[in-house]
Amino acid sequence: MHFASDNSGPVPQQILDALAAANRGYAMGYGADAEMAEVTARIREIFEAPEAAVYLVATGTAANVLALSTLAQPWQTVFCTRPAHINMDECNAPEFYTGGAKLTLVTEADKMTSEGLRAAIEGEETRGVHGPQRGPVSLTQVTEFGTVYSLTELQAVCAAAKEYGLPVHMDGARFTNALVSLGCTPAEMTWKAGVDAVSFGGTKNGCLGVEAVIFFDPRHAEEFEYRRKRGAHLFSKHRYLSAQMLAYLNDDLWLKNARAANAKAALLAEGLEAAGAHFTHPAQANMIFAALPRRRHQELFAAGAIYHLWDGLLQGPEHELVTARFVCDWSVPDEAIRAFLSLL
Amino acid sequence: MHFASDNSGPVPQQILDALAAANRGYAMGYGADAEMAEVTARIREIFEAPEAAVYLVATGTAANVLALSTLAQPWQTVFCTRPAHINMDECNAPEFYTGGAKLTLVTEADKMTSEGLRAAIEGEETRGVHGPQRGPVSLTQVTEFGTVYSLTELQAVCAAAKEYGLPVHMDGARFTNALVSLGCTPAEMTWKAGVDAVSFGGTKNGCLGVEAVIFFDPRHAEEFEYRRKRGAHLFSKHRYLSAQMLAYLNDDLWLKNARAANAKAALLAEGLEAAGAHFTHPAQANMIFAALPRRRHQELFAAGAIYHLWDGLLQGPEHELVTARFVCDWSVPDEAIRAFLSLL
Amino acid sequence: MHFASDNSGPVPQQILDALAAANRGYAMGYGADAEMAEVTARIREIFEAPEAAVYLVATGTAANVLALSTLAQPWQTVFCTRPAHINMDECNAPEFYTGGAKLTLVTEADKMTSEGLRAAIEGEETRGVHGPQRGPVSLTQVTEFGTVYSLTELQAVCAAAKEYGLPVHMDGARFTNALVSLGCTPAEMTWKAGVDAVSFGGTKNGCLGVEAVIFFDPRHAEEFEYRRKRGAHLFSKHRYLSAQMLAYLNDDLWLKNARAANAKAALLAEGLEAAGAHFTHPAQANMIFAALPRRRHQELFAAGAIYHLWDGLLQGPEHELVTARFVCDWSVPDEAIRAFLSLL
Amino acid sequence: MHFASDNSGPVPQQILDALAAANRGYAMGYGADAEMAEVTARIREIFEAPEAAVYLVATGTAANVLALSTLAQPWQTVFCTRPAHINMDECNAPEFYTGGAKLTLVTEADKMTSEGLRAAIEGEETRGVHGPQRGPVSLTQVTEFGTVYSLTELQAVCAAAKEYGLPVHMDGARFTNALVSLGCTPAEMTWKAGVDAVSFGGTKNGCLGVEAVIFFDPRHAEEFEYRRKRGAHLFSKHRYLSAQMLAYLNDDLWLKNARAANAKAALLAEGLEAAGAHFTHPAQANMIFAALPRRRHQELFAAGAIYHLWDGLLQGPEHELVTARFVCDWSVPDEAIRAFLSLL
Repeated sequence: MHFASDNSGPVPQQILDALAAANRGYAMGYGADAEMAEVTARIREIFEAPEAAVYLVATGTAANVLALSTLAQPWQTVFCTRPAHINMDECNAPEFYTGGAKLTLVTEADKMTSEGLRAAIEGEETRGVHGPQRGPVSLTQVTEFGTVYSLTELQAVCAAAKEYGLPVHMDGARFTNALVSLGCTPAEMTWKAGVDAVSFGGTKNGCLGVEAVIFFDPRHAEEFEYRRKRGAHLFSKHRYLSAQMLAYLNDDLWLKNARAANAKAALLAEGLEAAGAHFTHPAQANMIFAALPRRRHQELFAAGAIYHLWDGLLQGPEHELVTARFVCDWSVPDEAIRAFLSLL
Repeated sequence: MHFASDNSGPVPQQILDALAAANRGYAMGYGADAEMAEVTARIREIFEAPEAAVYLVATGTAANVLALSTLAQPWQTVFCTRPAHINMDECNAPEFYTGGAKLTLVTEADKMTSEGLRAAIEGEETRGVHGPQRGPVSLTQVTEFGTVYSLTELQAVCAAAKEYGLPVHMDGARFTNALVSLGCTPAEMTWKAGVDAVSFGGTKNGCLGVEAVIFFDPRHAEEFEYRRKRGAHLFSKHRYLSAQMLAYLNDDLWLKNARAANAKAALLAEGLEAAGAHFTHPAQANMIFAALPRRRHQELFAAGAIYHLWDGLLQGPEHELVTARFVCDWSVPDEAIRAFLSLL
Repeated sequence: MHFASDNSGPVPQQILDALAAANRGYAMGYGADAEMAEVTARIREIFEAPEAAVYLVATGTAANVLALSTLAQPWQTVFCTRPAHINMDECNAPEFYTGGAKLTLVTEADKMTSEGLRAAIEGEETRGVHGPQRGPVSLTQVTEFGTVYSLTELQAVCAAAKEYGLPVHMDGARFTNALVSLGCTPAEMTWKAGVDAVSFGGTKNGCLGVEAVIFFDPRHAEEFEYRRKRGAHLFSKHRYLSAQMLAYLNDDLWLKNARAANAKAALLAEGLEAAGAHFTHPAQANMIFAALPRRRHQELFAAGAIYHLWDGLLQGPEHELVTARFVCDWSVPDEAIRAFLSLL
Repeated sequence: MHFASDNSGPVPQQILDALAAANRGYAMGYGADAEMAEVTARIREIFEAPEAAVYLVATGTAANVLALSTLAQPWQTVFCTRPAHINMDECNAPEFYTGGAKLTLVTEADKMTSEGLRAAIEGEETRGVHGPQRGPVSLTQVTEFGTVYSLTELQAVCAAAKEYGLPVHMDGARFTNALVSLGCTPAEMTWKAGVDAVSFGGTKNGCLGVEAVIFFDPRHAEEFEYRRKRGAHLFSKHRYLSAQMLAYLNDDLWLKNARAANAKAALLAEGLEAAGAHFTHPAQANMIFAALPRRRHQELFAAGAIYHLWDGLLQGPEHELVTARFVCDWSVPDEAIRAFLSLL
């Protein structure tokens, strides 16, 4: 009954097997391994983007901040939501990597809208050289509250950014969970909608630790390479990153894992709903934000369930509603979900 | 009829005379001039702070960001209001000088309250090492909307910061305008209330370009000196900064200028009120934010008045109210105010 | 016949096994995994340093620059040799992470001496606040030219640093190769000699990608944690870093690998010497810098040997001596060495 | 008998008069003053560069580091000499402003040569993405040792830079002293020789504190404006910077001051030579580096002379030669020089 995070489960055997397979003989370092050439080809194919520049790093924060710092100037501001990982969970890494760019919070909510974005953009650069200049837009798909931008929503947000000539970055730590939720193609969810750069997550969806950064316009490639090395994110034994990503993309493992995680979350959500939980956000991928009376949380925790309370403490009035976050990864056993639901 | 800014008027003759007086013979550079020793002594006396570390720089932004970067770590966030100069008008200089610290906006309003600040502080550092850590609080006195924190308000805000062990910085670009408005002592408005560092403005109140940075705890002195030099803000011919500041402090010039500016603004506000203007903020120092029908602005501009519209354009429906900012410095002639008011 | 780098070979099966063993069930992320507690205990034991702060990152550059930025202020200069990895091979990562500190090159040679270091230190801070201030000393053990500081040499360099109150960092990307070469204890090679922080390498000696940063004074711990997160080097699925390091330290794998690598390099060096190669630096660990006539290189390359020429090109006068770097890792087969030597 | 620095003397009356003249009525801030338009026009005319972008800042370090950071990427290295002001006297401001670029020291000497520069450039970028990338070349004219690059020398250095596509920055803190020494035009000493950006000094040659940054290619203009504001170097009451620069350029004051300073230094050098001083560098502008027996220095200091010893202390063996730096500014009275020489 472990629903704390999709980074706390194990990885599928295929990933470990791929490491073992890559662990043969000598290989060029720093991204010049044979596996990386395959990764690039595969990602270009999947994204229908034959010119895309593709890079691997080991953490989602690295993917985000290296991508953003390639798109943003230090005197600009990055438009994002308040709950955005880059705002809440990266300990100022975006500010560090960009050399001091600012984040402008478009909304308190999980998703930005084109109207909200437009208003936020209009709110900046009203004072010539005095204020921050407008910089890239960064959105998270799946959002930090488990919701998914529809293609129409994505297109609208990107269109608003484009009106002002601003590039769009997608934090896709849970990219594939969104993709299978929408049932669209990677191209539709990115460059066809107007996205310029993607942090394409592997870690939360079954890898040990690997994320791809994809620029659809390859002119960013050279700068990114310097930034990656300067950020200390270029791996010498790069083949072990490549092998993970390759196994992840092979045989639809990425899609299968995401479908599994989303299905498990749906099962969990169904049970929560049946138990009268109040959903603060619609559960559209593999994360659920739902409120239960505190007493219920106390019982569940006592019974061994593991998850995070989001807006309250475990102690307090028994009947008060407290929101919790439940996350499913590909590996959570259905029995665990059933066991959990039976407690409800 | 020039009310655009208190940095657009001339400087009093005493300041120019002081430059001429300092322009004799040879002087040690980089702050080792005899005048600077006097400045330090004088400021320590005025602030009743015999241990204070005192430095001069030439711009208000430099004073703010050098002070803040001495108080903040790069992984921290600085608490300020949305309209704060450090947020709106310094083109990411705080982020640059702190090495990538963030700003957390406590409120949309001109002033933070102790409750608002406490809530903002509580909102940060909820995620261990993942989010930004709590850093200094920075408030502006006179605020960017022309209002003045009362001593009680100041004390409450500082007390909230101290509960969390956070240092307090005061952006005092219009320090003296606030001081004479409150009728208190510099000590009362700063360290006695809980302020740790002050940007003590000279430029907006009659100097060519000089601001003092004051740390009441001298342990910050050494670091500040490296930061100032590294920021390219250490003047070789420093005596000309010192001379300005000394003339500013001598014979109560600083107080006289601020009193004059505030009195002129009061006269202007009175006239605006009589003319039915709607004040968006109480005019408590030398800046007025007041709304007039657009037609009035059109007439006033046509008659040669110079000031900034704050929330609208000159063209539009005639009767719509449009807020404007009117600033008086020490030098604006009473006739100009009367001429302006007669137009109303 | 692959002697290009100790980051191009495979990892021992124990490391992969450890990943598989760690790949069970759910684990806390971000360093709170059970394996990390073991890693810390083990490293403290090995280093006889029960208070040491221990962290894992995935690249050697990350270890170096996170350690250095914790020890250095932005207005300081780091003392190192010209060939130092931090100077030559990290694309300005030290300057980036320190917020703009400088590197002062103590010597062109592989090793700094206490005299050289003293002279370099004396050469800085001669101009008060105007020049860079003296900061940490960073030395590499094994050096970038395959030589090893003796304990006496280390002690002398550290003593010189301590005379000026400067902390000492050791880039130990090949720490264990040096350790077994000297036949001393980890404590003797570090804190007993005067070293304050170590980048303790795993990657070049058999891991997929893991390095420990060790501070003997735990007061640096908190700051390091913020810097690691802010640098995007905190792993969510941290157990896979811990597992590698643990397997590396268990059953003396680290020592065995390093002994194997050094022995293989010694065998290679012997053969090179017999073949009349000129050694530009004594081969004291697992790297050899030796010159051969260009013709020899041409023959060796044609026969499939892989290594780097260090000071010349493959084309040119046949009899000219060209220095090459030969690196052995734990995995290079003895037959490969014999095959290579038979070509000589 | 004050020869310590050309930043310790007074400013000519014309500069103060210009401040007084500018001190009339209201003026737009932040560089939009009428005087600045005149400054730009005048500098374009003087430099025969009708497209040049021209900006004013108040310190030489600001001019240098804002110019360099506009030309350099953070992953690049700036080529300069060891004695360069940017290396020795700016407390890591170049590293700070560039976001962590490095300085590569071309030579220990006062001047770089095209051969030395070429060798230094060739020494970088030998390792792909691993090392720093090649960035701008920065040279100082007059050098930090009082020597002047001839036009031929300048052209050769710039040509070497251009071979590699690298931009050239000139630190012209003593630009005019070099100009009148060479007897050439500003265009010949800059863009015609291959210089892309100049820090055109005013402060050391008679201003209170003003330097122009000139880019001959105006595409750098926009970025520079953001960098200047973000660096806190944009003056609100900008007219007082403009007025200084305008007075400096009017009536050939800049040329007259530099000619006076150089002539005074020549007089001093002549006397020093007659007294048997040993010149460590040829005195070609307004700075002299000459060695005298320590006893002489003791006598001169005792008699009230003020200057800096450069390579030794005042106490020590009496007959040992100790080098001193003597600087003349425009204002040093001929009697002071004669008095000094009579002591010799």
